[in-house]
Amino acid sequence: MHPPEDIQSQLAEQRFKLTRVGVTGVKKPIVVKRPWGEVTLNATIDVYVDLPSDQKGSHMSRNVEVTGEVVDKSVREPVSSLEELTAEMCEILLERHEYASYSEVDIKADYFLERESPQERTSLENYEIRAKSEAYRDGETKSFIGVTAVGINACPCAMESIRSKYTEKFPELAESLEKIPTMTHNQRNKTTVMIEVPEEGDIEVNDLIDIIESSLSAPTHEILKREDEAEVVMQAHENPKFVEDVVRDLLAKLLDRYDHFGDSTQVSVKSESEESIHKHNAFAERVTTFGELRE
Amino acid sequence: MHPPEDIQSQLAEQRFKLTRVGVTGVKKPIVVKRPWGEVTLNATIDVYVDLPSDQKGSHMSRNVEVTGEVVDKSVREPVSSLEELTAEMCEILLERHEYASYSEVDIKADYFLERESPQERTSLENYEIRAKSEAYRDGETKSFIGVTAVGINACPCAMESIRSKYTEKFPELAESLEKIPTMTHNQRNKTTVMIEVPEEGDIEVNDLIDIIESSLSAPTHEILKREDEAEVVMQAHENPKFVEDVVRDLLAKLLDRYDHFGDSTQVSVKSESEESIHKHNAFAERVTTFGELRE
Amino acid sequence: MHPPEDIQSQLAEQRFKLTRVGVTGVKKPIVVKRPWGEVTLNATIDVYVDLPSDQKGSHMSRNVEVTGEVVDKSVREPVSSLEELTAEMCEILLERHEYASYSEVDIKADYFLERESPQERTSLENYEIRAKSEAYRDGETKSFIGVTAVGINACPCAMESIRSKYTEKFPELAESLEKIPTMTHNQRNKTTVMIEVPEEGDIEVNDLIDIIESSLSAPTHEILKREDEAEVVMQAHENPKFVEDVVRDLLAKLLDRYDHFGDSTQVSVKSESEESIHKHNAFAERVTTFGELRE
Amino acid sequence: MHPPEDIQSQLAEQRFKLTRVGVTGVKKPIVVKRPWGEVTLNATIDVYVDLPSDQKGSHMSRNVEVTGEVVDKSVREPVSSLEELTAEMCEILLERHEYASYSEVDIKADYFLERESPQERTSLENYEIRAKSEAYRDGETKSFIGVTAVGINACPCAMESIRSKYTEKFPELAESLEKIPTMTHNQRNKTTVMIEVPEEGDIEVNDLIDIIESSLSAPTHEILKREDEAEVVMQAHENPKFVEDVVRDLLAKLLDRYDHFGDSTQVSVKSESEESIHKHNAFAERVTTFGELRE
Repeated sequence: MHPPEDIQSQLAEQRFKLTRVGVTGVKKPIVVKRPWGEVTLNATIDVYVDLPSDQKGSHMSRNVEVTGEVVDKSVREPVSSLEELTAEMCEILLERHEYASYSEVDIKADYFLERESPQERTSLENYEIRAKSEAYRDGETKSFIGVTAVGINACPCAMESIRSKYTEKFPELAESLEKIPTMTHNQRNKTTVMIEVPEEGDIEVNDLIDIIESSLSAPTHEILKREDEAEVVMQAHENPKFVEDVVRDLLAKLLDRYDHFGDSTQVSVKSESEESIHKHNAFAERVTTFGELRE
Repeated sequence: MHPPEDIQSQLAEQRFKLTRVGVTGVKKPIVVKRPWGEVTLNATIDVYVDLPSDQKGSHMSRNVEVTGEVVDKSVREPVSSLEELTAEMCEILLERHEYASYSEVDIKADYFLERESPQERTSLENYEIRAKSEAYRDGETKSFIGVTAVGINACPCAMESIRSKYTEKFPELAESLEKIPTMTHNQRNKTTVMIEVPEEGDIEVNDLIDIIESSLSAPTHEILKREDEAEVVMQAHENPKFVEDVVRDLLAKLLDRYDHFGDSTQVSVKSESEESIHKHNAFAERVTTFGELRE
Repeated sequence: MHPPEDIQSQLAEQRFKLTRVGVTGVKKPIVVKRPWGEVTLNATIDVYVDLPSDQKGSHMSRNVEVTGEVVDKSVREPVSSLEELTAEMCEILLERHEYASYSEVDIKADYFLERESPQERTSLENYEIRAKSEAYRDGETKSFIGVTAVGINACPCAMESIRSKYTEKFPELAESLEKIPTMTHNQRNKTTVMIEVPEEGDIEVNDLIDIIESSLSAPTHEILKREDEAEVVMQAHENPKFVEDVVRDLLAKLLDRYDHFGDSTQVSVKSESEESIHKHNAFAERVTTFGELRE
Repeated sequence: MHPPEDIQSQLAEQRFKLTRVGVTGVKKPIVVKRPWGEVTLNATIDVYVDLPSDQKGSHMSRNVEVTGEVVDKSVREPVSSLEELTAEMCEILLERHEYASYSEVDIKADYFLERESPQERTSLENYEIRAKSEAYRDGETKSFIGVTAVGINACPCAMESIRSKYTEKFPELAESLEKIPTMTHNQRNKTTVMIEVPEEGDIEVNDLIDIIESSLSAPTHEILKREDEAEVVMQAHENPKFVEDVVRDLLAKLLDRYDHFGDSTQVSVKSESEESIHKHNAFAERVTTFGELRE
């Protein structure tokens, strides 16, 4: 009696190599060390390797096994960062898939951080974090860490138009209109940074959150009593920003904070505002390297 | 040679009747008559009947057949309203499923309507419409029509807090702060009406859109040049509203517009704001009848 | 200098009471006791109270405060169940919103449980759990606990049609076709139970998961090596089920497992299959009470 | 009285150019010519240009204006393809944004096509189509057309394992197990092609749908009576495929069908199966050029 054939290892009929083959949407809890203790992240994980042109199928259950092993280990020995985990997974994937020359792991998870409102009221705020590694058998492993934060941005263009209209209509209020920011449309904004973690550098996700939130018109908070609410709105209006401004200010802060990172360091920043005066969104993005930004 | 058994018609092993059995997420284009011509709606359709306790399965392909027939007919003879279509489908479903005592059809579709900005710039604005019918074999058929519109609402509470703060800080600007609305947080708001279409009444979906948009701080527009943008923002700030206000103003307008509708007419209104100062939403809802509202 | 007015407490212009007013989509980590230790659930929380007809606005920040307090407490003293948490939140909400006569809290969270494959390979499987409480100031508090599990179901109807076709075409294989289940379409199925937690009863979410998974054609697993995969597929084909069967078998098991629950106990069960042979889904649902099921 | 300043045209404080700035999620109906008449597609549109380092903001309302004009024109003169529309929009965008060197338009829409079941029963089947153009001021405009189709794929690996298990257990059925495909897991599969439309070539979206559906284990249909259902399931089991096979077969067919396309023609194919035996998906992808495929 012979065992069933290993169909995956058969010769492929159509000899095309495949860029990425794997599993998507695997959900697992991952335990991560944080300065204030251990936290459990509910992660969604995609795991891929490439496939040479002559092999019919990739052994996908190995991808899920590697995920399970590394994640289980995190329960006993919490990892210090998600990108450490994705890099380790990439290496093990190349060992297990002896035919692969490339591996990729992409993890997204909800993340919570205690933040203070203007009136020093604390609450746990929600962010999305992401870690991604790409490994080549005969070369380097690149890792990226990303954060998406939700905040508020207020439009400088409508503010100026309205200030101008009121000044024309009520010339006697001109002085007042210079002193106090004028109304404008403001809205929920979602801004994302994704940055390569170079060998010479180390990136703390909480720093990225600080950098994003300080690039918005204002950060937002889950609990705001009346006084707090007023201060957040005033801060946003004293600091009106296009999505273009958000991306550029963020790039400047990244260059400053990580000035020891090499020119080849890849970075992308995007900011999307759910415009309150439109049914569509406003969007700005830069995909680049530290070298290009330094030019 | 005997044919395969009709498994669905077999006796059920567990004798429980089922409330709803059917198909969900059927996508079809439906052609509807509008005052200005015919429009094609891309619809997503759910179709159910109930199932008596002794029958193993419902013949679900009949649900899709009825959908196909009625929708195909709409291409040759455009229907005058979606709720006419759902009511007709409910009746045919009870004919085809001889064992059913109840049928239900729920259709959602994107809808476009030409609207004018304050500066009379026109653009096609996007809405979601919904029609639902419920029919009983030995009784009446109830139909509902619904609309979801996206607009802007501006918070009256933060406006008042900030006005008060500035008045305290700059007493010399008190007059100005009374004349011009103060800044506040404003955001994208999604408001939905779902109302029973009574025998004595007829409801035009465009009227519901008017009623929703006039209950918000302001409607929104896809194209706004600088002047327009200023006017929308000013309109919203002259008209600050909680989600609670949106729901109540909407209820008052519905009672007024459809004052000939009977007391048993069911209606539900909900309004959700994607708060620009929070990561969560603010929500208000009323589920009721015209009779209760008239008390 | 007078403080800003409490806009929410003003008289409403349109005197309609509101069914539910509150916040939706608040994200928080909640620590829950489990037999094997503490787990952190990433929860999404909706929190509502009603609003009398004469009050302009609900104080929504109180909803988020209550959420924060109760969730923070769970970090120090893990709660033993989510429905205990929602019930406690409902009570505090009625204290804080002195004008409200009703409060409601609805929590959804990802949940992980270790399960064994047929070959006794363990992996953490993902489920969605839900807890909901509704409290009346002058009456009772009702709590519900729910679980959604993903599994596989295989269609008995296509299996019978195909067996019949093959028997006709290859009469010599008739015996074999009786011995081994014939191919059929099988697909990912999502089944949800939501059940009232009566005073006389206690419900363990892991039991609900067992009950759902045993009502499907087969449970699914994240890691399946070749032998395991074969066994899951064979189990599903030896156990073909309509979504109607899934709902009914589940109801029978609930009645049996919780036979000490009173007749008024509310329960709803729904099962949806992402049909592999269609682009739409198949759906069955029963919304009822234990009393009706016992008739 | 001077007009409000054009804030967008001001000098940027942070001098970084931006890769893409624009609007996302604009919804419009577009009228397209098809061999059998005109159809209205409900489209979701993203429109971007780049932004030089010294300019503060992009004039985003121009993006929406261009969208409105081109879409309105389609009502009077239906366009013959979506990629014609995206290419035209890209050109107009470069005219209107005199400071931009790049423009990009990406349109997604539901699409319906009449298909026949094995028993020649016709129904309108739903697909997603996509068109994308990228234009450089001093260079070429590249356009892409894409289609996503949902079908069924059946796993060859589990089929072989199960055949082997049954052969071992019931040696007397060996012959029968060779004659009739054995059961296996099968599931909903979503496969996407995105291909560059070269100058020398023309691509009809209906052909791409044919190519995708013929690369799956079987296409799926909204209406299947008992006989039809059996044939679709049998076809899928006679044609078991990994997602890897789907991608490769599709690439071979594209190379064959469009053999007159140049080596630089870009193409990407991905296939994702919603595994019925797992809670996660299986995925395969190739991103390449015709030249690489011909090697």
